[in-house]
Amino acid sequence: MKIAITGKGGVGKTTLSGTLACILSQHYKVFAIDADPDMNLASSLGITEPITPISKMKDLIKERTGAESGSSFGEVFKMNPKISDLPESLSINYDDKGNLKLLVMGTVDKGGEGCVCPASVLLKALLRNLILKKDEIVILDMEAGIEHLGRKTAEAVDLMIIVVEPGLKSIETAERIKRLATDIGIPKIACVINKASNEAEENFVVQKLKEIGLDVIGSIPRDENVIKADMEGHPLVNYPESTAFKSIEKIAEIILGQDEG
Amino acid sequence: MKIAITGKGGVGKTTLSGTLACILSQHYKVFAIDADPDMNLASSLGITEPITPISKMKDLIKERTGAESGSSFGEVFKMNPKISDLPESLSINYDDKGNLKLLVMGTVDKGGEGCVCPASVLLKALLRNLILKKDEIVILDMEAGIEHLGRKTAEAVDLMIIVVEPGLKSIETAERIKRLATDIGIPKIACVINKASNEAEENFVVQKLKEIGLDVIGSIPRDENVIKADMEGHPLVNYPESTAFKSIEKIAEIILGQDEG
Repeated sequence: MKIAITGKGGVGKTTLSGTLACILSQHYKVFAIDADPDMNLASSLGITEPITPISKMKDLIKERTGAESGSSFGEVFKMNPKISDLPESLSINYDDKGNLKLLVMGTVDKGGEGCVCPASVLLKALLRNLILKKDEIVILDMEAGIEHLGRKTAEAVDLMIIVVEPGLKSIETAERIKRLATDIGIPKIACVINKASNEAEENFVVQKLKEIGLDVIGSIPRDENVIKADMEGHPLVNYPESTAFKSIEKIAEIILGQDEG
Repeated sequence: MKIAITGKGGVGKTTLSGTLACILSQHYKVFAIDADPDMNLASSLGITEPITPISKMKDLIKERTGAESGSSFGEVFKMNPKISDLPESLSINYDDKGNLKLLVMGTVDKGGEGCVCPASVLLKALLRNLILKKDEIVILDMEAGIEHLGRKTAEAVDLMIIVVEPGLKSIETAERIKRLATDIGIPKIACVINKASNEAEENFVVQKLKEIGLDVIGSIPRDENVIKADMEGHPLVNYPESTAFKSIEKIAEIILGQDEG
């Protein structure tokens, strides 16, 4: 299964992506991909080592596959469509078991160097040609907002999760994402509510999302542990007893249940 | 003066941009520009009318200036460098006085239509060629993260404000923004802290920013009124007695003081 986590900036995409990846890696081989040029997924997993980005991948893959110079990115990935075959140097193992690997799309290295369109094209080709085994899951932490939907970076995902917080701005963004994701043919779209302080706030968001035709598959209440974890530079999995972590465990179960159903 | 408001997604760029624009419009002609394809600035001002985006500007300006077909965007703007001369249809007046006008860069209308690079090029050319009068201020609400710095959308601003919240992720983003903004030659970079719940959180952020060489020009404490305003779809200026609003008033004074100094 390929899952993309989207939403307005700051709603908690990276915390959900990282924590979900850790939880699912207990039973699956998980490939967590940071598709945001302003990369935070590694730090949300507590990883500080530098990772070679996918945008530096073309040469590496050529080296391994012997793909001819001049072949398009799509062709290169078609020749090597198993994510488990990707060069080790591109990913970092999260724990000893090696069930969770982290890949990063690429960032802006220098002011004025241009957009991240070429990196997006690479990632899109990778996702399109990727053949996953039954026990493999890809989780994409997308960049904030909607530009990636213009680029169709995540067109090949099975499920797009939109993270929404109490407030009209993030709901407005959810509505835009829904419309654009439908344009590019994403088969399943669902919402996760984050940071509701009480039931009234949660109900407010559920109701608004219902009006625009979006289902809610889970809610992560506001939890000081999330802020604490970010201030200390620790991943949320270090707080397995926190409400936020337990809520994400439930969301993981629901996602897996939907996949089987 | 041209000011760009930047930072990680969700730190409060739009709330600061919109509120600052309102406050400054009491004494200046303010042009607030939404440079985020996932546009929220209008709703943070309580504006619901649709606005023609700058990305539809080329034909309109040609119509007015008689610029020849085939001339580059830069040339078109050079012929018409006063923002007060821009076609009225591109902007919306915020109040009766007409001291605050809102322009929008443009969004993604259809999934898969491409990136927003062309719209960024237009906005960059506009900003570069713009000649402001003494009593005119431009406030740019930038998109989340760092890609706009690769594109140099805001290269012609006098001051870049980075909004930071308590947490290492937004501080990491601030560090990246500082480095990339320096690359493209932004003359002044300063931080505003947002959403600190207490003095300890504020001091934590101040200290971290100091370590990476960033000055703090103000702090907006966590204020439930901001969440309330967003849930009700009201601008923060409707809460003139709130701590958040009063903090932004102080920041406005400091910005104006720096400009004179």
